[in-house]
Amino acid sequence: MKILIVNGPNLNLLGIREPQIYGNQSFEAYFNELKIESKVELSYFQSNIEGELINCLQESDHDGIILNAGGFTHTSVALRDCVAAIAVPVVEVHISNITKREEFRHTSLLSPVVVGCIFGFGLKSYELAIHFFEINKR
Amino acid sequence: MKILIVNGPNLNLLGIREPQIYGNQSFEAYFNELKIESKVELSYFQSNIEGELINCLQESDHDGIILNAGGFTHTSVALRDCVAAIAVPVVEVHISNITKREEFRHTSLLSPVVVGCIFGFGLKSYELAIHFFEINKR
Amino acid sequence: MKILIVNGPNLNLLGIREPQIYGNQSFEAYFNELKIESKVELSYFQSNIEGELINCLQESDHDGIILNAGGFTHTSVALRDCVAAIAVPVVEVHISNITKREEFRHTSLLSPVVVGCIFGFGLKSYELAIHFFEINKR
Amino acid sequence: MKILIVNGPNLNLLGIREPQIYGNQSFEAYFNELKIESKVELSYFQSNIEGELINCLQESDHDGIILNAGGFTHTSVALRDCVAAIAVPVVEVHISNITKREEFRHTSLLSPVVVGCIFGFGLKSYELAIHFFEINKR
Amino acid sequence: MKILIVNGPNLNLLGIREPQIYGNQSFEAYFNELKIESKVELSYFQSNIEGELINCLQESDHDGIILNAGGFTHTSVALRDCVAAIAVPVVEVHISNITKREEFRHTSLLSPVVVGCIFGFGLKSYELAIHFFEINKR
Amino acid sequence: MKILIVNGPNLNLLGIREPQIYGNQSFEAYFNELKIESKVELSYFQSNIEGELINCLQESDHDGIILNAGGFTHTSVALRDCVAAIAVPVVEVHISNITKREEFRHTSLLSPVVVGCIFGFGLKSYELAIHFFEINKR
Amino acid sequence: MKILIVNGPNLNLLGIREPQIYGNQSFEAYFNELKIESKVELSYFQSNIEGELINCLQESDHDGIILNAGGFTHTSVALRDCVAAIAVPVVEVHISNITKREEFRHTSLLSPVVVGCIFGFGLKSYELAIHFFEINKR
Amino acid sequence: MKILIVNGPNLNLLGIREPQIYGNQSFEAYFNELKIESKVELSYFQSNIEGELINCLQESDHDGIILNAGGFTHTSVALRDCVAAIAVPVVEVHISNITKREEFRHTSLLSPVVVGCIFGFGLKSYELAIHFFEINKR
Amino acid sequence: MKILIVNGPNLNLLGIREPQIYGNQSFEAYFNELKIESKVELSYFQSNIEGELINCLQESDHDGIILNAGGFTHTSVALRDCVAAIAVPVVEVHISNITKREEFRHTSLLSPVVVGCIFGFGLKSYELAIHFFEINKR
Amino acid sequence: MKILIVNGPNLNLLGIREPQIYGNQSFEAYFNELKIESKVELSYFQSNIEGELINCLQESDHDGIILNAGGFTHTSVALRDCVAAIAVPVVEVHISNITKREEFRHTSLLSPVVVGCIFGFGLKSYELAIHFFEINKR
Amino acid sequence: MKILIVNGPNLNLLGIREPQIYGNQSFEAYFNELKIESKVELSYFQSNIEGELINCLQESDHDGIILNAGGFTHTSVALRDCVAAIAVPVVEVHISNITKREEFRHTSLLSPVVVGCIFGFGLKSYELAIHFFEINKR
Amino acid sequence: MKILIVNGPNLNLLGIREPQIYGNQSFEAYFNELKIESKVELSYFQSNIEGELINCLQESDHDGIILNAGGFTHTSVALRDCVAAIAVPVVEVHISNITKREEFRHTSLLSPVVVGCIFGFGLKSYELAIHFFEINKR
Repeated sequence: MKILIVNGPNLNLLGIREPQIYGNQSFEAYFNELKIESKVELSYFQSNIEGELINCLQESDHDGIILNAGGFTHTSVALRDCVAAIAVPVVEVHISNITKREEFRHTSLLSPVVVGCIFGFGLKSYELAIHFFEINKR
Repeated sequence: MKILIVNGPNLNLLGIREPQIYGNQSFEAYFNELKIESKVELSYFQSNIEGELINCLQESDHDGIILNAGGFTHTSVALRDCVAAIAVPVVEVHISNITKREEFRHTSLLSPVVVGCIFGFGLKSYELAIHFFEINKR
Repeated sequence: MKILIVNGPNLNLLGIREPQIYGNQSFEAYFNELKIESKVELSYFQSNIEGELINCLQESDHDGIILNAGGFTHTSVALRDCVAAIAVPVVEVHISNITKREEFRHTSLLSPVVVGCIFGFGLKSYELAIHFFEINKR
Repeated sequence: MKILIVNGPNLNLLGIREPQIYGNQSFEAYFNELKIESKVELSYFQSNIEGELINCLQESDHDGIILNAGGFTHTSVALRDCVAAIAVPVVEVHISNITKREEFRHTSLLSPVVVGCIFGFGLKSYELAIHFFEINKR
Repeated sequence: MKILIVNGPNLNLLGIREPQIYGNQSFEAYFNELKIESKVELSYFQSNIEGELINCLQESDHDGIILNAGGFTHTSVALRDCVAAIAVPVVEVHISNITKREEFRHTSLLSPVVVGCIFGFGLKSYELAIHFFEINKR
Repeated sequence: MKILIVNGPNLNLLGIREPQIYGNQSFEAYFNELKIESKVELSYFQSNIEGELINCLQESDHDGIILNAGGFTHTSVALRDCVAAIAVPVVEVHISNITKREEFRHTSLLSPVVVGCIFGFGLKSYELAIHFFEINKR
Repeated sequence: MKILIVNGPNLNLLGIREPQIYGNQSFEAYFNELKIESKVELSYFQSNIEGELINCLQESDHDGIILNAGGFTHTSVALRDCVAAIAVPVVEVHISNITKREEFRHTSLLSPVVVGCIFGFGLKSYELAIHFFEINKR
Repeated sequence: MKILIVNGPNLNLLGIREPQIYGNQSFEAYFNELKIESKVELSYFQSNIEGELINCLQESDHDGIILNAGGFTHTSVALRDCVAAIAVPVVEVHISNITKREEFRHTSLLSPVVVGCIFGFGLKSYELAIHFFEINKR
Repeated sequence: MKILIVNGPNLNLLGIREPQIYGNQSFEAYFNELKIESKVELSYFQSNIEGELINCLQESDHDGIILNAGGFTHTSVALRDCVAAIAVPVVEVHISNITKREEFRHTSLLSPVVVGCIFGFGLKSYELAIHFFEINKR
Repeated sequence: MKILIVNGPNLNLLGIREPQIYGNQSFEAYFNELKIESKVELSYFQSNIEGELINCLQESDHDGIILNAGGFTHTSVALRDCVAAIAVPVVEVHISNITKREEFRHTSLLSPVVVGCIFGFGLKSYELAIHFFEINKR
Repeated sequence: MKILIVNGPNLNLLGIREPQIYGNQSFEAYFNELKIESKVELSYFQSNIEGELINCLQESDHDGIILNAGGFTHTSVALRDCVAAIAVPVVEVHISNITKREEFRHTSLLSPVVVGCIFGFGLKSYELAIHFFEINKR
Repeated sequence: MKILIVNGPNLNLLGIREPQIYGNQSFEAYFNELKIESKVELSYFQSNIEGELINCLQESDHDGIILNAGGFTHTSVALRDCVAAIAVPVVEVHISNITKREEFRHTSLLSPVVVGCIFGFGLKSYELAIHFFEINKR
């Protein structure tokens, strides 16, 4: 089973940016831990460019995608259209509890086209998404 | 580790009510399966009466609560105040992807006061919430 | 043919409360008249507790329900979910013409899930609802 | 007792137009059945022209009017003013449950100036309105 | 100097309809008084049909039009387009103070395309409009 | 192939009214040119009365209708219901780019029930609509 | 008969300020002309200070007040309360057609508490208001 | 003089819940102090169940009720209807200054049907309400 | 203990203005009674000029201020900033129950920056505010 | 005459993505057919990256551009600014009737700065746009 | 070159009021420093009375005005009208970054009628405005 | 002291695009002048691709950034998150007075996370921003 984790803009700053919200571990470090512990085959892609995320999703042939689209979550119809168009099932995750933050972060354009959403559990949101793909194939 | 699952109004109809949205397994049957498989100690409470849910949450001394408040999710300030007041951490779950349904189901009064939210994974939403409590204590 | 009339909060005050809006006959007195005149078998339930109304609707095995949910009409997603979930057809009635009153009474959460609505005819709204069940079975 | 039924735009297409919503019986056929069964004296007027409906209502000397204003229900202040101005009591009916349809059909400009509203019962909505006038004169 | 007074729907009921708002003199009676007292040549048109009002305005070759569009004031883009298209200057009048009444009467689609507005002075609103045309030609 | 062009209120003023928006050619002159050049059989109807437009559409047995409803575009639920009810395919056109004008012209009640929309191309909008019917039958 | 004209902020700049909207005659010059021509006794007060306008209105013992509150029209609840509180009848006037200007000028807090409104007629708006008081006392 | 204090959901947690907002004294302890100091006869009722609060208010024969409806303040039309229906005068109180908190707490459905409101004074809000009943009977 | 009562615009008309809302006693008469009965040292300031109220508040060295800002309550950011800036604690009062009146009176710009609010108790609202300062110093 | 067709995000999936909305022909296949049939010289550009679309438009020296911006239609101020800035006339097209789909697709940021819009005709929307450029140069 | 700095309500409290937002230097002290360092001739006016600010602006014959209208920024149409009416160019400044504060501070009625805006730079906002007038005359 | 100027989409068209709004000097020409006159070390980056702007900001090690994000100002949460995440202080500038233009340009997503904003001064907005960094380090 192959799972792709896709991170959107500024998530390359994890561990540096606003640690009171996002913690101080870089995503790469976390991803390496995940890869070792995980029973599924994990790959990872990050970009700050919306269209590169779309390209990546369009080309995916994985069994599942875990998508944290960062700021694009709330503004990108193009990304939403892409998620709706591809055959690979997508799970939306967020590190923080987005409903505790600014009003404009409370609405996700992606949620209505994904399988389900997981947010607020810190980096553990990714683990829960992986767990979903694991128990779903059973 | 003791986890309490709390279900709100009409979730006692699961398996009977709108199977195209909620599937056709009763929650009791599912809960019994869960109990057997789970490494944590699980208990379960359901009520159609908002105030009884509040009473139940106030009296809880569990290590975590998994709350599916059903229709109260979108309307109950009283339940929100209760979740905010108690010390036990609460995870919000929904069986369906609520962002795909009527407009008024897109906003949860509970989300800003819980640890995190998991929705859209069918009954597996509950399992992911249990998994969170398991990996969180590590 | 068995028809259940379900009245929500404060309708036990009928005849006492705001007679300029609701008239001065108690519902019990009216119900007894109805029972005598009516060709269908009528029963009656009233509660001020939302969850008890839900319990009552869930347990109903009547041929039709006439529901005046009072103040819950405009606020209860839980009651709406219940009406949508049960198999018994529900007709929504109101004594007053709710569109002549405060703005928040103009929207009913129940209307989209009932068979039809009848309001503004005083206590005769109930009779029209009974009449519907009578002519509908023909 | 003389009752006038007034139908607004496109209701002359009944039985032809969108049968999944309105059924496939023409109103004329239905009206003829009604006339035979009914204890009150019924007449009927239909027009696609808003001002002709207003003219008709202004000239009415019936004991009651049953008005299905079709699309004008949601847009015509002029028709509302007319209903408010005349002395004959008006009952508003709709064939479909308008609260299940597009957002703009959920608000009726007429409702606050009529005696009461009946909708969602198919053509039986008209019969319930006739029944109201019958039981009201008792 | 030739002035045309154009009245919209239900203004033929003046003196009959809602006298607490509009007084109890018919417009015809009032118009005859106006004609005698006035220094300008007055003519009068009334219709309940929106398109007939548009036809009348399009064909006008008067020096000024006084328009009370009744209920169409708040809903008719077609009438607005007509007023904007014709060369004859139009003054908008209302008998009642429309800002004291229902919310939907507070906005006039016509106001932005007329010379000016006069409302709240009872039938004297028409006299003030005539007075404007008199003093404007000086 | 028979195509009917239907024009709504004030479009009889074309060439006279607001030439900076609509140009200075009358529609009749333009229609005569169109008729000569066109490979399909064209007919034309214009009215300022909403209900006459509805009557015309209801009675049409053409292969296609090109509808410019003028001011009714933004206000007429009755016309929308008519377009939705008839079997003849309807194309919506506007001479001006309505999205450049007043806010209330940005929404068309008709668009969701027509085949497609063409606007902003001056009188050429009609030619493009004719072209659609020509290439569609191929 | 004594009439008081009250002008609000910036109307002392008339003839100087934005002549394309307000013309180039100062109000004082205009007032002197009015005084000579008028059959009623006119006085005049202007202030840029909201509270001084309130003081002036409270102390008035005239037979009528003509109020152009300028920018306070759209923002001053205090002035509205004052107009509602005093016994002298108040007519609201504006020089420009306020419905043709910025959105925030379309709503007047004063209109619901005055006798009536006159706007769009340039300085002639004041003359029409005087004319109202003259014909009203007849 | 008999006064009833009615507290809504979660106010049984006072002294435990969010002490930075509500202080750390339990309401029972406070009530016992109040009872000793007060010149009026005080009783107390608390419930987390909306319908039990309605039952309690309906059955009250006190000279005044002091109501802190907690989270129901902002959501319960049923409680509002009850307060409007009963003859006993009700004063609304809140411990915190609700206008400093979340947007949804700024609107009270109860305020328009009570005698008056007192909020922001901590537990002293109750004392001020008692003081009102004392000075009102003088 | 020195308490300052500050009244805003039109409260100098009390006893004259709209007695059905505000009663018919002048504030000066009431204040003199209050002064005699009260245990604290009371002073009083009223102005119709917003900036004079601000000046007065800025210069206050009292132990508490009771502020009824009248119409400025709903519109004055400047007054709000002043209340927030000064060290003296402010209690907001209103004579009428402002939530029963026009929509724009339901929101107070001042409430989020005062200690607490008291409204709806007639002139007794002031006495309750005084009572708060008395029991607060204990 | 040289015409450039520019397609935005996900239109490279045409024929694959949501065929019930967009049909099952790829755009490349369609474009090759168009090129053969067309009298104008056609070129084609597609990108999922907003800024590359802007670059492409800025560098265009064609006689006309046909733009289907996909999801950027509803969100990209940057693209709108670009269309407004360049000298080449732009026609906006959409394959589907966007007014029949989600609410957020009903508003196009591009429409007010293009020559005109054509939508709902499937791939024929492009042909109609080409036809416009052909008949426009005549 | 003569520049006038105009400060609105509560800015006389600078250095006293909310130092966490505005710093703890009084504006007078700062102004004296500015005067010494500056190459332009500076004068200063402050008032808490809206109308006095209007008077001051109307009478100005300076080469430029730097306006910090404090709370009037968000509420005063009268001040906006004044800025639009006078010939002297006005630059709007704010000490704090108003977009970081309460929602109602995000909109300035003045911005659309000034040359430009500078906010968020503390007292340095004034220096930047002076710098603009210096480099603008070059 | 090193300052980076970052320009967003379409600002490479400066001098070409809409000169009535932006003037007719290219930014490169202006930048070269600035570089010569300025006491700080200036560098410059422009891109039409949102993600490249984010990359550029993330990699910056300057003492300050001057950001004109063009159309992304109003739509890019991703850019906002980036500005909030980096340590370098950012000043937001706009050439035009954005509050005089379309409604959607009145709100900047960036403003709440920058030091301050400067707009409306033409290209001089950049000079004022440079001046801020100069006087800030003093």
